[in-house]
Amino acid sequence: MIENKRIGIWLIGVKGGVASTSVVGLLAFQRQLSDPIGIITEISPFSELPIPAWGDLVVGGHEIRRTSLVDEAELLVTESRTVERDMFEALREPLAEIDGRICKGTLYRSGDAIRELADWDVPEDATAADAIARIADDLRAFQENENLDQTIVINVSSTEPWVDPTCLPATWDELEATLGDKDCPLPPSSIYAIAAFQTGCSFINFTPSLGSLAEATRELAIRQQVCHAGRDGKTGETLMKSVLAPMFARRNLDVMSWVGHNIFGNMDGQILDDPANKATKVTSKDRLLGDILGYQPQTLVTIEYIKSLGDWKTAWDHIHFRGFLGATMSLQFTWQGCDSILAAPLVLDLVRLTTAARRRGCVGALDFLASFFKSPMEPDATGGTLSTVPPPFDEQFQILTEWASREINENNTD
Amino acid sequence: MIENKRIGIWLIGVKGGVASTSVVGLLAFQRQLSDPIGIITEISPFSELPIPAWGDLVVGGHEIRRTSLVDEAELLVTESRTVERDMFEALREPLAEIDGRICKGTLYRSGDAIRELADWDVPEDATAADAIARIADDLRAFQENENLDQTIVINVSSTEPWVDPTCLPATWDELEATLGDKDCPLPPSSIYAIAAFQTGCSFINFTPSLGSLAEATRELAIRQQVCHAGRDGKTGETLMKSVLAPMFARRNLDVMSWVGHNIFGNMDGQILDDPANKATKVTSKDRLLGDILGYQPQTLVTIEYIKSLGDWKTAWDHIHFRGFLGATMSLQFTWQGCDSILAAPLVLDLVRLTTAARRRGCVGALDFLASFFKSPMEPDATGGTLSTVPPPFDEQFQILTEWASREINENNTD
Amino acid sequence: MIENKRIGIWLIGVKGGVASTSVVGLLAFQRQLSDPIGIITEISPFSELPIPAWGDLVVGGHEIRRTSLVDEAELLVTESRTVERDMFEALREPLAEIDGRICKGTLYRSGDAIRELADWDVPEDATAADAIARIADDLRAFQENENLDQTIVINVSSTEPWVDPTCLPATWDELEATLGDKDCPLPPSSIYAIAAFQTGCSFINFTPSLGSLAEATRELAIRQQVCHAGRDGKTGETLMKSVLAPMFARRNLDVMSWVGHNIFGNMDGQILDDPANKATKVTSKDRLLGDILGYQPQTLVTIEYIKSLGDWKTAWDHIHFRGFLGATMSLQFTWQGCDSILAAPLVLDLVRLTTAARRRGCVGALDFLASFFKSPMEPDATGGTLSTVPPPFDEQFQILTEWASREINENNTD
Amino acid sequence: MIENKRIGIWLIGVKGGVASTSVVGLLAFQRQLSDPIGIITEISPFSELPIPAWGDLVVGGHEIRRTSLVDEAELLVTESRTVERDMFEALREPLAEIDGRICKGTLYRSGDAIRELADWDVPEDATAADAIARIADDLRAFQENENLDQTIVINVSSTEPWVDPTCLPATWDELEATLGDKDCPLPPSSIYAIAAFQTGCSFINFTPSLGSLAEATRELAIRQQVCHAGRDGKTGETLMKSVLAPMFARRNLDVMSWVGHNIFGNMDGQILDDPANKATKVTSKDRLLGDILGYQPQTLVTIEYIKSLGDWKTAWDHIHFRGFLGATMSLQFTWQGCDSILAAPLVLDLVRLTTAARRRGCVGALDFLASFFKSPMEPDATGGTLSTVPPPFDEQFQILTEWASREINENNTD
Repeated sequence: MIENKRIGIWLIGVKGGVASTSVVGLLAFQRQLSDPIGIITEISPFSELPIPAWGDLVVGGHEIRRTSLVDEAELLVTESRTVERDMFEALREPLAEIDGRICKGTLYRSGDAIRELADWDVPEDATAADAIARIADDLRAFQENENLDQTIVINVSSTEPWVDPTCLPATWDELEATLGDKDCPLPPSSIYAIAAFQTGCSFINFTPSLGSLAEATRELAIRQQVCHAGRDGKTGETLMKSVLAPMFARRNLDVMSWVGHNIFGNMDGQILDDPANKATKVTSKDRLLGDILGYQPQTLVTIEYIKSLGDWKTAWDHIHFRGFLGATMSLQFTWQGCDSILAAPLVLDLVRLTTAARRRGCVGALDFLASFFKSPMEPDATGGTLSTVPPPFDEQFQILTEWASREINENNTD
Repeated sequence: MIENKRIGIWLIGVKGGVASTSVVGLLAFQRQLSDPIGIITEISPFSELPIPAWGDLVVGGHEIRRTSLVDEAELLVTESRTVERDMFEALREPLAEIDGRICKGTLYRSGDAIRELADWDVPEDATAADAIARIADDLRAFQENENLDQTIVINVSSTEPWVDPTCLPATWDELEATLGDKDCPLPPSSIYAIAAFQTGCSFINFTPSLGSLAEATRELAIRQQVCHAGRDGKTGETLMKSVLAPMFARRNLDVMSWVGHNIFGNMDGQILDDPANKATKVTSKDRLLGDILGYQPQTLVTIEYIKSLGDWKTAWDHIHFRGFLGATMSLQFTWQGCDSILAAPLVLDLVRLTTAARRRGCVGALDFLASFFKSPMEPDATGGTLSTVPPPFDEQFQILTEWASREINENNTD
Repeated sequence: MIENKRIGIWLIGVKGGVASTSVVGLLAFQRQLSDPIGIITEISPFSELPIPAWGDLVVGGHEIRRTSLVDEAELLVTESRTVERDMFEALREPLAEIDGRICKGTLYRSGDAIRELADWDVPEDATAADAIARIADDLRAFQENENLDQTIVINVSSTEPWVDPTCLPATWDELEATLGDKDCPLPPSSIYAIAAFQTGCSFINFTPSLGSLAEATRELAIRQQVCHAGRDGKTGETLMKSVLAPMFARRNLDVMSWVGHNIFGNMDGQILDDPANKATKVTSKDRLLGDILGYQPQTLVTIEYIKSLGDWKTAWDHIHFRGFLGATMSLQFTWQGCDSILAAPLVLDLVRLTTAARRRGCVGALDFLASFFKSPMEPDATGGTLSTVPPPFDEQFQILTEWASREINENNTD
Repeated sequence: MIENKRIGIWLIGVKGGVASTSVVGLLAFQRQLSDPIGIITEISPFSELPIPAWGDLVVGGHEIRRTSLVDEAELLVTESRTVERDMFEALREPLAEIDGRICKGTLYRSGDAIRELADWDVPEDATAADAIARIADDLRAFQENENLDQTIVINVSSTEPWVDPTCLPATWDELEATLGDKDCPLPPSSIYAIAAFQTGCSFINFTPSLGSLAEATRELAIRQQVCHAGRDGKTGETLMKSVLAPMFARRNLDVMSWVGHNIFGNMDGQILDDPANKATKVTSKDRLLGDILGYQPQTLVTIEYIKSLGDWKTAWDHIHFRGFLGATMSLQFTWQGCDSILAAPLVLDLVRLTTAARRRGCVGALDFLASFFKSPMEPDATGGTLSTVPPPFDEQFQILTEWASREINENNTD
C-alpha cells in the first residue's frame, strides 16, 4: 500500500523549453484540458504499473535565468504556437505557484556558452563540494515542504562541454575526496546527480551531458539505494536512425553513407553553436549506426542554428546504400518536429516509470529505459538483468515491455 | 544426410524483371562474380540452416512472352543499368541454357492487361483443369529431366485482377469438382499453385495475386505435404511502413494521415495502369497501417506509371501526426530503389528458406516467413506455431530468427 | 484628380478561406496591425501607380453559406493558426460590419458539390437572366450605399465543373438572347461576371472556373468599358512550375516526366474531391509545362483531400530530366504553404492594380496581369498591347513591370 | 569570310571529370553518337551565331596527374555510369590522340591539397614568370602544330585557395614587374590566364579560383585584344538559387533563412575537404541571395565529401519564408545531378560563344555570359554594354539572348 503518494519532479533547467512544455502538459492533464497524446504510461501494459496519477506530481526546479516560468510558457503560445492561449490562461496561476519553488542553479564549470545565458544572480560556487551542498539543501527543503514520498531530479538543461568519465576517479570514495579541489572537473549535470543521490532522489539525465555516467557516481547511486537513467532523450532524427538502421541490417543491405543535417533555432541550438557543446551532442547522435549495422558507414551529422525555425527542428537525412549486385539506391527523409513537444511526454513517462521502478525496489541504472535515450546507460556491473543494451529501438522497446509485464505480474502477486 | 542435393527453382514469369535479376544474381553467385549483398541466408543465423548451396540450384519457368531470357537480362545492362556488361557477357551461355527450359504459361482468366503482353503462341486452356494438367506436366518433366530433390515454384509474374477467396469453395474436394467448369474463377496464380502442389513442389507467391491463399488450396498443400508462403514481396514503401508505423505506435503518437505516392515505369507499372490490377496491389499496400496502429488514419496510396523511371521506383510518403498537447508534426520520406534489385535477393532467400523448411519437415503455410511479404499468410488453422502474424516488421523478423535458431539447434541434435 | 476615392471590393465566396484571409489582412493594414508582406503594390515600381490606399477600400460580397465572416475569420486563429488571437479580437467589429453587407449568391448550375455546401436559404434562380438581374441589383445597391468610385468584383469561390467556352454563342448579343432559356449552361462565375460588367464593375476571376473567359463576355466588358482578368491565382505548385520549367528550357535539358502530387484539407479540397470540379482544376495546372518547354513531357497532377492538413497545402513534385550524353537526373521539391495566406495578397494586389488600370483608362482583358494566374487570359483581339502571353513567370512579371513603369511615366506627365 | 576554321580548346585540368566528360561529348558529337542535349548553341537563336562546328574543334590541355585521358574517360563508364561502354570504345582512339597533346601544368602556389594530387613529374616553377613562360610555350606550340584560327583556354581544374584580387597591383605594368619575385601570390589559375592572354588566346574560368579576375589581368586582356569570362560554372544548387530567389522577391515574400547542404564524392569534393579551398567555393555560392533579395537572410551553405556518391551531387535546400500576416512557410528541394554532366555542355557552349564573340570583335570581359557563372564578372569599366550584371538567372539569360540576337542581325548585315 502506498501511504504518502505525493511525488516530486525537480527539473534542472526548469524554465527551458522542454521543462516548460512538460509542466504545461502536466498541469493540463491534471485539469483534463488535453488528451495525453505521446504518453506511453497511459497505454497498456505501462498504465498498469504502480505509476503516480497526474494529480500526485509536484513540480520544482533549478534555473540560471531570471525569466519566469509563466513568461516562458507564454512563449509556447506566441512563438512555437504549440499551446493555445485559452489553455495557457487557465494554467497561469499554477505556473506562478511553481515559480515560487524555483531555486538558483550552479554555474560551476558550466562552460562559457551556458554562463552567458545566466542573467539571474546565481551564487558562485567555489568548489564542486560547495555546489553539491547548496543544491542538496534545496532538494531537502523541497521534499520536506511538499511532504514527498519520492523525488525525481531530471536534467533538461542545455548541453555542457564534454567531460571524459574515464578521467575521473573510479570509486565514490576517491571522487568524493576531490570534490573540494579547485580543479575538480565535474560539470553541473554531475553535481546535480550527486546532490540528488545524497538526498535520496532518483536522477534522470535527459541531455548528452555527463550526469551520473561515471563509475563513481554509479556506485553512489547503488550505495544510496536510488535509481538513475540516461543519457540524451531520443526524440527525432536519432529515433529515426535507431528505427531505420535495423531495417537495412535485417535485409543485409550495405549502408555506404548516412548524412544527417539538423537545423533549428531554439536556445539549445544557440548553446550548440559553441563547438565545445556541439561535440558532446554530435557524438551522442553519431555512434549508434556502427553499433546497429556491425560496420561503420561514412557518417556526417551537422546541427546548425537557424534562428527563424525556433523550436521546430527540421532534419534531412540521406542514406546511400547498396543492394543486390551492388546496385546503389537511396532513402531520404525530412523530419519536421517540435523538439519540446517530442521531449516533454518522454520526461513525464520517465518520471512515472522511475517512480514505479523504485516502488518495485529497483536500484542503480535503469537499463530497461534504454528506448528513451540516444546513448543509453549500460547495465550496472552487478545486479542488472541485462548484460548489455541492444541499439535497435524495437529491441530496446521490447526490453521495456518485458520489464513492465514482469513487474506488473509480480506486483499483482505481491 | 542429403543424398540428392539438386534443387529446382521454377519461376512463373521467368523472363520478367524480378526473375531475370534473380537469375543473373544466382548465376553470378555460382561463379563468384558478385558479393551476395541483400541475401540474409548468407549471414548468421540463417546461413546455418540446411540451405542449398548456390551451385545446387537449377532454374526453369513459365512465361507468356516470346522474348528470350538472354535479351531480358541484357536490358539490365542497357536500361536499368544495374548489371555491368562484363558480368552479363560472362553469363550469356548459362542464361541461354535456361531459355531452353522455359515453357509456355497459361492465360486462363489472366485479365486483359496481362493478355495484351502475351506475344508468344501460348495454348488456350479451355478450363482451369486443362491448364493445371498442362502446367503439372511441365513441372514433372523439369523434375525428372534435372533429377531434382525438391522444386520451389515461385510466382513473380504481373499482378492479376483480384479474385475474392471467400467466394471459392471452402474445401479442396469441392474446389476440385469445379475445375472443369467453364466459369471457374481461379486465376493463373492459383492454377500454378495447384499444379505445384499436385506435383509435390512448394509454392511461393511473391505477388499480390491470389495464388495459394484460398482455404481449399491451403488444404491441398497440407494433403500433399508441401510448403507454401506469400503474398506480395515487401520490398520498398511497404517495408518502410512496417518499420516506421510501429515507431509512432510505441511513442503513442497519433498518426492522422499517411499519404504514399509511388511512381515507376517498368512492365509491372504498365500492368498496374489497368484499374482492375491496381486494386489488387493497392489493397495489399494499404491495410497494414491500421493493423499496426490500432486505429485507421486517413490513408492514400497511389501507384502511377511514369515511363522515364523504368525499374527505378520512387516513393514519396507524407506522414502527418499529432503529439503532446495536440501539436502537429510531419515526416516525409523519398525512397529511390530499383524494384527488381530489391526483390531478387528475397526470391533467392525464400527459395533457400523454403528448401530448408521442407528438409526440416515443415508442411503447409510457412507463417514464419511473414517478414518477406506485404500481406503475409495467416498460420494454418492447425499445426502452426503462431496464432497470428504481427504486422510490425521487427516482430516478424524476430519470428523468423527464432524459427531459424530452433531449427538449427534441432538439426544439430538430430 | 481623383475626387471620390472610395473603392469597393466585392468578393464572391466572401466567407471562404481566401476571402476571409484577404479581409483580415486588409483590415489589419488599415489599422497598421501587420506589415504588408507578400503585397507587391507596396514596393517599387508598383507602389507608384495610382493605387487606392488601404483606408479607401470597402468590402462586401456574395455567399451561399450561413456562417458569419466573424466566425470564419476566427477559424484562422484556431484552425490554420495563421492569425493571432489578439489581431482577430481587434478586428471583430469591422468584420461584423462587413457581415452586414453580405448578400445571398446564386446556385444556378453550380453543380452538386457546391450545392451541398449551401446551407443558407439562397434564392433559386429559374434562369441565368434572373440570377444576373438579382446579382446586379446587389452590386448597384452596394455602389450607391457606399458611394463608390469603382468596384472590383473578385471571384474567390469554390471551383465549378468545367463549361467549355467554345460551346457558347460567340457574341454578346447572341449570348444575351439565351440567358432566359432554361438550359443556358452559364455557370455562377459567368453570371457574376456579367452582372459586374452590366453594373460597371471590373471582374477578376481568381478561380479556374469559366468566369469572363468566353468571347461573348469579353465583348461585353469592352462594350461596358470595364476591365477584367483571370484565371486561377498562381500561388504554389504552379508558380513553382512556371519558375522552374524555364530553367530546364534555357539549359536545353530534356524534361522526361514531371509528377506533382498536391495534398490539402480545406473546403476547396472537399469540393475538388468531386471529379467534375477536380477536372477544371487539374487542367488549369497541367498545361503550362508543354507551353514553356516546347514539347510535352509525361505529366501527372493529383490533388487529394487530406483532412488533417487543413489549409496547409503540401505539394511534392518529381522532375526527371536528361542532360548531356543522355544522363538522367532528378529534382524534387516539397512546397508547404498555406493556400489562403498565399492567395490573399494576390487578391489585394489585383484589386489595387485593376483600380489603377481603370484609372489609367484600360479596358477589356488586363493581359499584363498574367503573372498572377495559372491560366492567364490571352490579350483581346483588338487593342491589346501584347500579341500573346508568354508562359514563363519571369517574362510575365517583366510585362507587368514594364506596364507599370509606362503608366507611371505617363501618369506623371498627364 | 572565315578562312582557317580550326579552333583550339585548351583545358586546364584536362584529365579531370568535367574535362573528360566534355571531351567525350565533343568526340561523340563529331561522330553523331549522341544528341546534343544540354547544349544551347544547338538551339535558336544561339545556333545562328558564327559558332564553330563540332568538327572544327581541336582539344589539348595541361594536367598535373599522370593518369591518361583514356583511363579517366573509362571511369565515366565504370564509376559514374554516365557513358555507355560502346560509346567509350568508339572514342578510345581519338581520346588517345588527345593524350598525346597534353602538357604538364604548374603547381606554383597551388596549395597543399592540389599538390597532393600531383603524381606526374611536373616541373617546379621557381617564379610565376617562369611558369607563365613555360605555359605560354605550350600554348604557342599547340596553335602552331594544329594550325588554329583561335584558341580558348578554359580552366576546369580543382578549386584553389582564395587569393584576394584587391591585394594585387592594380595595373598590368605593376603586376608584370612582380612576376619574377619569389613571393608573387598569383595562383595557377591566374598564371594560365596570363599565359593565354600573352599568346593571343581567350580565357574562361569555369572554377571559383582567381583566374583573370584581378584588374591588372583584365587590363592585359584588353591590351591583347582577347576575350575572357568567368567565374565558377553555375550548374546545380546555385542555378536553382538564382532561379528561385527572384520568385520570392517578385512576390514580396520574406525569406528568413536559406540552408543548402551539398554532398558529393568526386575529386572536387576531396579538394574541397581542405578548408582553404572550400572557403573559395562557399563564398562563390553564398553571395547571390542577398544580391537578388535586396536583404540578407540567414544563410548556411555546406559542401561535404561523401565518397559513396562519386560524381553524383545531391543538394538539399530548405527555404523558410514569411508571407501575408507573417505566416511562415517552407520550400525544400533535393537536386540529384551529376556534376560533370551538368558542367560539360556549359564548357562546350562557352567555347563556341567565346569563339563567336571574338569573331564578332568582342574584347575584354564577356559580361553577357553571366548566366553561365555563379560569380559572373562585372563589365569592364569601359567599353562594356552593361553597367552591371543582374543576379537573377532569367535576367542574365535575357542579356545573353539579346546579345546573340543583336550580333546575328549585325552579322547578317555585315
